[in-house]
Amino acid sequence: MGQYTAPLRDMQFVLHELLNVEAEVKNMPKHADLDADTINQVLEEAGKFCAEVLFPLNQIGDREGCTYEGDGVVRTPAGFKQAYKQYVEAGWPALGCDPEYGGQGLPAFVNNALFEMLNSANQAWTMYPGLSHGAYECVHAHGAPELQKTYLPKLVDGTWTGTMCLTEPHCGTDLGMLRTKAEPNSDGSYAISGTKIFISSGEHDLAENIVHLVLARLPGAPMGTKGISLFIVPKFIPTDAGAPGERNGVKCGSIEHKMGIHGNSTCVINLDNANGWLVGEPNKGLNAMFVMMNAARLGVGMQGLGLTEIAYQNSLVYAKERLQMRSLTGPKAPEKAADPIIVHPDVRRMLLTQKAYAEAGRAFTYWAALNIDKELSHADESARKDAADLVALLTPVIKAFLTDNAFEGTNMGMQIYGGHGFISEWGMEQYVRDARINMIYEGTNSIQALDLLGRKILGDMGAKLKKFGKLVTDFVEEEGVKPEMQEFINPLADIGDKVQKLTMEIGMKAMQNPDEVGAAAVPYMRTVGHLVFSYFWARMARIALDKEAEGDPFYKAKLATARFYFAKLLPETASTIRAARAGSKTLMDYDEALF
Amino acid sequence: MGQYTAPLRDMQFVLHELLNVEAEVKNMPKHADLDADTINQVLEEAGKFCAEVLFPLNQIGDREGCTYEGDGVVRTPAGFKQAYKQYVEAGWPALGCDPEYGGQGLPAFVNNALFEMLNSANQAWTMYPGLSHGAYECVHAHGAPELQKTYLPKLVDGTWTGTMCLTEPHCGTDLGMLRTKAEPNSDGSYAISGTKIFISSGEHDLAENIVHLVLARLPGAPMGTKGISLFIVPKFIPTDAGAPGERNGVKCGSIEHKMGIHGNSTCVINLDNANGWLVGEPNKGLNAMFVMMNAARLGVGMQGLGLTEIAYQNSLVYAKERLQMRSLTGPKAPEKAADPIIVHPDVRRMLLTQKAYAEAGRAFTYWAALNIDKELSHADESARKDAADLVALLTPVIKAFLTDNAFEGTNMGMQIYGGHGFISEWGMEQYVRDARINMIYEGTNSIQALDLLGRKILGDMGAKLKKFGKLVTDFVEEEGVKPEMQEFINPLADIGDKVQKLTMEIGMKAMQNPDEVGAAAVPYMRTVGHLVFSYFWARMARIALDKEAEGDPFYKAKLATARFYFAKLLPETASTIRAARAGSKTLMDYDEALF
Repeated sequence: MGQYTAPLRDMQFVLHELLNVEAEVKNMPKHADLDADTINQVLEEAGKFCAEVLFPLNQIGDREGCTYEGDGVVRTPAGFKQAYKQYVEAGWPALGCDPEYGGQGLPAFVNNALFEMLNSANQAWTMYPGLSHGAYECVHAHGAPELQKTYLPKLVDGTWTGTMCLTEPHCGTDLGMLRTKAEPNSDGSYAISGTKIFISSGEHDLAENIVHLVLARLPGAPMGTKGISLFIVPKFIPTDAGAPGERNGVKCGSIEHKMGIHGNSTCVINLDNANGWLVGEPNKGLNAMFVMMNAARLGVGMQGLGLTEIAYQNSLVYAKERLQMRSLTGPKAPEKAADPIIVHPDVRRMLLTQKAYAEAGRAFTYWAALNIDKELSHADESARKDAADLVALLTPVIKAFLTDNAFEGTNMGMQIYGGHGFISEWGMEQYVRDARINMIYEGTNSIQALDLLGRKILGDMGAKLKKFGKLVTDFVEEEGVKPEMQEFINPLADIGDKVQKLTMEIGMKAMQNPDEVGAAAVPYMRTVGHLVFSYFWARMARIALDKEAEGDPFYKAKLATARFYFAKLLPETASTIRAARAGSKTLMDYDEALF
Repeated sequence: MGQYTAPLRDMQFVLHELLNVEAEVKNMPKHADLDADTINQVLEEAGKFCAEVLFPLNQIGDREGCTYEGDGVVRTPAGFKQAYKQYVEAGWPALGCDPEYGGQGLPAFVNNALFEMLNSANQAWTMYPGLSHGAYECVHAHGAPELQKTYLPKLVDGTWTGTMCLTEPHCGTDLGMLRTKAEPNSDGSYAISGTKIFISSGEHDLAENIVHLVLARLPGAPMGTKGISLFIVPKFIPTDAGAPGERNGVKCGSIEHKMGIHGNSTCVINLDNANGWLVGEPNKGLNAMFVMMNAARLGVGMQGLGLTEIAYQNSLVYAKERLQMRSLTGPKAPEKAADPIIVHPDVRRMLLTQKAYAEAGRAFTYWAALNIDKELSHADESARKDAADLVALLTPVIKAFLTDNAFEGTNMGMQIYGGHGFISEWGMEQYVRDARINMIYEGTNSIQALDLLGRKILGDMGAKLKKFGKLVTDFVEEEGVKPEMQEFINPLADIGDKVQKLTMEIGMKAMQNPDEVGAAAVPYMRTVGHLVFSYFWARMARIALDKEAEGDPFYKAKLATARFYFAKLLPETASTIRAARAGSKTLMDYDEALF
């Protein structure tokens, strides 16, 4: 049950009216010829594929799940394989890839928009091509030319898929503890042995080969994270002709039974003297893997956005159809047995929360993807550097803030459905279960918060934060004098000031006591997330004010959602700032024996 | 996997040190002889049963679920029937029941403590006896003597179980729309026909008979909620000797597949000219059913408390065992490969949130149960009235605030477990799924919030709220002069003032526009919940300060948790108050066409 329609109008609003991508790509030689029509056409086609092919498989995938058939063989749910075939045949895996390896060379922001829609339609399925794209980016950035020549065309055309093999039973967050070993072979390859767990898309029946990117230790490597190297370990070793050859010693041992994303295989991967090839420098594996991890973190944020959008769409349909009680201000549909529940203020609060989070999340992530394009392709070096800093700063915010919001948004969907929300057939409870993993994998949201506050902000004395802050203050200065913008600019300026003060305060305290960072990080993350959302809502409101007179209700809705955001959601920061300021004392003075 | 130990020490603290129940029952003639030793012995025995019999069935129940075997027959998961047999044989169903019908006549606060433990051990199983007890209370309060004589002894000894049949496919919250019909038979009984859905424990194999309490309409009954009557509809019609006789026309049509509580059957119940007997007055059925609904709402709050406690216990074990990363202030377990994750501030934040919510929830609900006993049994009429008002006021807070907190607490459990939290085998994700229904059934938490603000508070111009407010101000006046209590009394007094002002403000606005109630209700509910928790944390801190010198670490922990609560959790109200004050404008000005 349920429905999905790609939110093309809002996607186009963000790309063309908010971000003005057609003008932006003029500064990127390799994308300079891209025009808005082409982008819109791609998105429209992608939207169709998502709505017609992937979305109908979402509940089937959840109900059926993946099956471990023994001896390393995993079967995906009915229809997944056929959908993947269609995806490959339509050339979608190549969309954002390098033309040198068969890619279509479109910017990251287009690929990002594709992934929003894929995730709305079917998150579990999307993780197969999603991880492949991460593997592509990693090998593209760090692989030796011969590895690139062998693997990239296959990842680009989608005939092979990828995985990232980091976690082991005793180490997830703490990769420094990993034990998988890599012994050099005489032919320049390595023999890799160990056990990896929680490997998403680790084994399946969608593609003829699977390319594992595996972290392991070379003999005599230093302890901790400085002794980790990265290897490419294919399921079938490519022949000289590039076809899948000999079966490699990398095998799925079992799959996990889990709360959600049942259609994606979460595998134990056993490596038994598997042939592997070094990617990047010895002992610099984590550095190379970070390319993939950052891509994955943005990808997880897009999962959050996709689920928020689909939850909103279906909640809205239900809220307009379900008749229950009368409005407190008198019947709104007197001809019916009761009013549709959308008349009730609290149902509207939930719908508008979903909508405000989805639309701000879209603005934020598409803008971030545009900055990835700038980082990679802008003609001007300082523009590349600025963009890189903004992306580095805000990647943990995209991952954590958007997935927190998606959990809230999907749970609101369940709540709007009432009792039916808890029943599998109606589809809403699956979104909650699927959304839950996004707060955990690719670094828990606590780890993202530590990365933001400890590494990205305090780690460079706030330099990167200042770059984002400058965007905010420039906008505030430009718009703050205009009366019609007061209602948006005042709260934006206020949260900007508060973040600055809060950051200074924590920074000072952290110099005395590093635990202050850990104690403040999670509420600090929520606070920064709202600063970013306030900025984008104010910018979107500016555009909507300019175009409101044209009469398109889209702009009226945008303005009304902006007003809702500032009135009802931004106030969360009143408590997150207090919680962040409350410090570490009540946490750390608590004797472990007293728990 | 996992473990459960009844938190007897804290339960005894609440009953004897905080509430002083032994002294309180002296004012209740029918409980006057009850002493602390007896209570403690009962709790200890109950704790054993929960830990040894019920808890081991919790994951099995989730994995196996209930099975619809066709023709109205439902099988419960392996072990459920045997556990129920043991429960009945030990006399637990009779604990809080009237001795006239075979009950043990213990006060509600003892029965409440039993249900906390049952819910920690196995919520899905506990719903079978839980609904029976609600049915017992309803028939005890409103049934005619012959119905009481027939049904109560069977509900008391547990050989029969009960259900409440309210919801129909087109009406959940809005019972005024219900269509099930009751036609008078010549023998004084009624022929009941209709379809009920979401009937928890509606069919199963635990007991020889099932007593359905069914809402239906008499011929010519007024429209809406004033035309609803309540009927008792047994699965098997009792013979004159009181044994299950002829099969009645009430049958399970199917069971739901749902997100959680898999071990409890959620049934479609078809009534086809089923024999029913009127409970209470014609057309006053909702009034009679409210006894059961209020009991059920308190019961759902206890489900929230039970899950918060079990999530805490298992999170704590994991946090002490799991080694990952080093403390930011330097290694705490240098002899190990990494520190246990309990050294990290954010893990402590989550553990202490669970703990603070569990302990305040325990104090609050046991106090509420004591007030139910006062309402029913206190020698003094004005004491009975005061207690009744406090219970009526705070029932929706217990239901909504505690189940919100349980969802947060169980989710924090998953987060502490990291990736393992998402894997079924580890047990944490089941708690999240089970906890989720508690926010929906027996009136969604939005409905509870409306009940609190609209009916219980504004409905009597704040009279009931003033009664709770007086408890707070009395305590503030008494303790506010003592320096050692400043850190607790100041924030308590502050939140008390704020709730008062906020209530007045919303009350004024609501007179102009009733939608202001709906717009403010949910954040208002969270604010009042924190007022209640602040009051109990301040009272518990007072006791702990008095006894700290005795050297029992229990009191040291209690004080430290109180400090954590005021520093880190109460600040939520900074945003809930702002959101409540933000009013209805941005919600209701939003044209429906713009969503």
